[in-house]
Amino acid sequence: MFKEYDVIVVGAGHAGCEAAAAAANLGSSVLLITMNMNTIAQMSCNPAMGGVAKGQIVREIDAMGGYSGIVTDKTSIQFRMLNQSKGPAMWSPRAQSDRMRFAEEWRLTLERIPNIDFWQDTVSSVLVKGNTIRGIRTSLGIEIASKAVVLTNGTFLNGLIHIGEKKFGGGRTAEKAATGLTEQLTDLGFEAGRMKTGTPPRIDGRSLDYTKMEEQWGDEERGRFSFTEVEMIEQQRCCWITYTNASVHETLKEGFEKSPMFTGRIKGLGPRYCPSIEDKINRFAERERHQIFVEPEGLNTVEIYVNGFSTSLPEDVQYKALTKIPGFENAKMFRPGYAIEYDYFPPTQLSLTLETKLISNLFFAGQINGTTGYEEAACQGFIAGINAHQKITDQHELIMKRSESYIGVLIDDLVTKGTEEPYRMFTSRAEHRLLLRQDNADIRLTPIAHKLGLVNNERLEKVNSKITDAQRIVDFVKSASVSPSQVNALLENLGTSPITQNVKLFQLLSRPQLSVSDIRKISNELDQLLEGYKKETIEEAEIKVKYESYFEKEQEIVTRMKKMEDQTINPDFDYHKLVSLSKEAREKLMKIKPRTLGQASRISGVSPSDITVLMVHVSK
Amino acid sequence: MFKEYDVIVVGAGHAGCEAAAAAANLGSSVLLITMNMNTIAQMSCNPAMGGVAKGQIVREIDAMGGYSGIVTDKTSIQFRMLNQSKGPAMWSPRAQSDRMRFAEEWRLTLERIPNIDFWQDTVSSVLVKGNTIRGIRTSLGIEIASKAVVLTNGTFLNGLIHIGEKKFGGGRTAEKAATGLTEQLTDLGFEAGRMKTGTPPRIDGRSLDYTKMEEQWGDEERGRFSFTEVEMIEQQRCCWITYTNASVHETLKEGFEKSPMFTGRIKGLGPRYCPSIEDKINRFAERERHQIFVEPEGLNTVEIYVNGFSTSLPEDVQYKALTKIPGFENAKMFRPGYAIEYDYFPPTQLSLTLETKLISNLFFAGQINGTTGYEEAACQGFIAGINAHQKITDQHELIMKRSESYIGVLIDDLVTKGTEEPYRMFTSRAEHRLLLRQDNADIRLTPIAHKLGLVNNERLEKVNSKITDAQRIVDFVKSASVSPSQVNALLENLGTSPITQNVKLFQLLSRPQLSVSDIRKISNELDQLLEGYKKETIEEAEIKVKYESYFEKEQEIVTRMKKMEDQTINPDFDYHKLVSLSKEAREKLMKIKPRTLGQASRISGVSPSDITVLMVHVSK
Repeated sequence: MFKEYDVIVVGAGHAGCEAAAAAANLGSSVLLITMNMNTIAQMSCNPAMGGVAKGQIVREIDAMGGYSGIVTDKTSIQFRMLNQSKGPAMWSPRAQSDRMRFAEEWRLTLERIPNIDFWQDTVSSVLVKGNTIRGIRTSLGIEIASKAVVLTNGTFLNGLIHIGEKKFGGGRTAEKAATGLTEQLTDLGFEAGRMKTGTPPRIDGRSLDYTKMEEQWGDEERGRFSFTEVEMIEQQRCCWITYTNASVHETLKEGFEKSPMFTGRIKGLGPRYCPSIEDKINRFAERERHQIFVEPEGLNTVEIYVNGFSTSLPEDVQYKALTKIPGFENAKMFRPGYAIEYDYFPPTQLSLTLETKLISNLFFAGQINGTTGYEEAACQGFIAGINAHQKITDQHELIMKRSESYIGVLIDDLVTKGTEEPYRMFTSRAEHRLLLRQDNADIRLTPIAHKLGLVNNERLEKVNSKITDAQRIVDFVKSASVSPSQVNALLENLGTSPITQNVKLFQLLSRPQLSVSDIRKISNELDQLLEGYKKETIEEAEIKVKYESYFEKEQEIVTRMKKMEDQTINPDFDYHKLVSLSKEAREKLMKIKPRTLGQASRISGVSPSDITVLMVHVSK
Repeated sequence: MFKEYDVIVVGAGHAGCEAAAAAANLGSSVLLITMNMNTIAQMSCNPAMGGVAKGQIVREIDAMGGYSGIVTDKTSIQFRMLNQSKGPAMWSPRAQSDRMRFAEEWRLTLERIPNIDFWQDTVSSVLVKGNTIRGIRTSLGIEIASKAVVLTNGTFLNGLIHIGEKKFGGGRTAEKAATGLTEQLTDLGFEAGRMKTGTPPRIDGRSLDYTKMEEQWGDEERGRFSFTEVEMIEQQRCCWITYTNASVHETLKEGFEKSPMFTGRIKGLGPRYCPSIEDKINRFAERERHQIFVEPEGLNTVEIYVNGFSTSLPEDVQYKALTKIPGFENAKMFRPGYAIEYDYFPPTQLSLTLETKLISNLFFAGQINGTTGYEEAACQGFIAGINAHQKITDQHELIMKRSESYIGVLIDDLVTKGTEEPYRMFTSRAEHRLLLRQDNADIRLTPIAHKLGLVNNERLEKVNSKITDAQRIVDFVKSASVSPSQVNALLENLGTSPITQNVKLFQLLSRPQLSVSDIRKISNELDQLLEGYKKETIEEAEIKVKYESYFEKEQEIVTRMKKMEDQTINPDFDYHKLVSLSKEAREKLMKIKPRTLGQASRISGVSPSDITVLMVHVSK
């Protein structure tokens, strides 16, 4: 009934979709198995992609030929570039999507990829021969052979939903959990753990009083996630901001004795930086209010997502507390929020390719690795899909560097340090974040994807043009001068000191008060030059000029650390023999099997003196 | 948390959606409870609405202000008027819909109705006080009060899915079953039974060879379901026809020993006129082939519905047999077909308003009453929703007559005769089908809906204009004459005998060989008159002219029978006292409690002589 596939992808959420697409686009025959063909790419939680650090990840996936950015652009109903008041390393795109259209678009996107087949079923175990994966077995009892398997089970493995004192099995609200797989993997020697996450209630937008909230519209000049320009929904929707208050908090506290979080019924740790509302008022008792983002679930639907109000308190407590939020006095719920516990596998059991160390050609991606967030899941799926293909075709593995991408930071963090609570990306996790910007994701990563064959020549040339065009603009402003009489009026206007002699345009543009659009007003030549370039190219040039010195310093650090960072270690190196290492370091190094000295240095319990010992022996 | 609602509708399939909309539009506050907000109005089986007799039902619902026709029009990707070679009583509209858009459109339609609230949960029992409904209780343990409840549970009550020898609980593939409700209703005194239905495998359209099949396009002049003109998807899609053969049948037979149908594992009876493929080759062993309609599931998706190949044989047998169908040699399945058993309640336990006789203000609609088909379900939901509102507001009940609608035929059949296998509508079930046409559904029913307040003045005026305009055309052709020289050339061309003296246009149009478009060519006056009228009005006039004598005869029969048909019987009439009735008649009459002598005459076991006895006593 089934041929042998190159790659079987289990699960069709953000991770599974990107994994299937990447492997198939590289040439592998892929079978995507999902419990329900109608729920491919369901956004289980908020109807939005991107945000701080997460938006950069989506740009990175897009730069390498993934689809998360394209699907988001095609279905977005509001776009905002966050942190525009800060430096460009902090700029982060974020979009609200139409939930139904997002899922539909992903499914149609996958259907258009010739190498992907689909099968609706539940995977109950994997087939293993020796220590190599051989395929999967489903709950219908069907065995399907493959050379590699990517598991992206999300919150479905032994999923247990909690609302107050009630609990019931389920992978998502109204969906079944998946059982059997954790038990088998544990039998095979994998260590499994338990995590939890949660989601807020959904509300009937017709019951809200928006006059009591602050409007939040998208950017006037609407941005995009994808470097490829796709058709977008024209109409945009407003979001709103409101706040909790003492009365909301008091009401919520009434439910604490029935809270599955506080009574110990939930064992798994939840996402620290995406806490439930009860967690927030418990941990930050001094805060008088918390912000609530009121987000539409689609272009036409009245359904509302109450961002900031994730909760697993009893549904009547949720309701009572909600109605004390300004604008929510007459709120009607569609369904209560809930918490969900699920199985994950500590990611230190993976190599940097996301292949498991225990079973060859078996890859894990997404929440199964202890992460939280659509973007974190998507990029893992993307890398796992690529590496599954590379592995079974005997091609070089793809290991993303910390100095070149957030994806690299994420995977290195997971694999090297592990995680005991749902891992979310932040800009602060990246030591070279000045270099890892949303604007240059294509410059950083498209060439890598092009080498793999995931991105065509045209896209690479587009990136190369962006680089040379931006440089041309930089060169021009470095060479062209203006006189005091030409600019001092403008400078005064902008509240910055006048010049006393001719200066290069470059010097003016370096000043924080002046933008390219100011400078082009005083230089006809620059204005004419810029006429020929795209907005994103001009932006790239401006960022280069304004932050050049910072970038150069950062790049120097990267180069200086490169020697250690890139110094590879034989994966079979026997650390037990190095008695000069601390005992803890030996144990951790044997477990993690770092690929480089850099990775070794980030393992908790491995000290700088351990690294010095390693340096001596590794360089031998 | 919840106010007391006027009407709670349980289930959001075709029946539930129409029920909620009808009650809400009449002014009731409605709570629609669904197990999953994302699966509102899912088409569980084929992605099409209408067909013979079923298309008439959709037109009837539409004529009365329901939404099935509008939602279908907005999402249709192919429209055909079936049986156009036959008389107009047989013309039946049918449309393929985009499955995802159909569900989305229904949901958005419901969201736009102010009186409908939504709640995602599973109803586990109803609340009853004395013998009156008081509300429902959900699996979350929430009690919600209401004055009336409409149950539209579809195939979810103790749903059990079968594929070969495997079986598992579920209300639909990948969805949970609903438990508890049947048991409670049985405890309350309801009789419950078991039925089964099935669905074919879904196929990857990219794996089919369409050159081996016959194309089937929609009508060139595309029709509509709704009397209200809504915006439609412009692009249309092709369907295809192929056939099974001896080899397919032989392969299927190999699976018979594992068939849940033939081994007795399935207890419930399936739909006789929508049998599984194994049933067809078993019951019609002499047939060498069966027709297969290959239907796209949407405008852009590659998913294909294999109409005519419903099966619950083991999935490998399904697959092997499929690949022997011309064009399916390399077919890839998305998921196997399956059979599903579920609980129903014999509909003789209902009155003609679809209220249960046992519990006041509790209504049943759809498959829970033993019917099959989206259209059958939708019209029951519509009538139940109306009657729930009418009952709790002390207004007159709505009982649809057999002589004025298929809806009336369906409900009368169910309530009066009951059904032991899934009931499907056919034109042959209607004794006055000449009068129950798709073209005059508005003329028949819009005035009734207008009186109820479901349809506005504008719509009623539109119907009245259609009637008077059509009559004006009829009057004209009855008065205007043509001479032999004007028409004989045309008549000869069309193969019908020439005229020898002036005749009225009416006489010519009565001939089957001539259509209005022929006649208007020979009469400038008629042509000019018709310029001012809509296509549907001209069609109505043409049908009137061509079939006037038949319609008149049929109407006479209706009038003649009306006296008996409409002779009401006191619902509390004690038949036991009428010893001149046969014992069987007494028992059946006590059970069914017919509302009219006409209904009594259709109860099986009630003989013409029993009716004569009743006539005497009822007219007293």
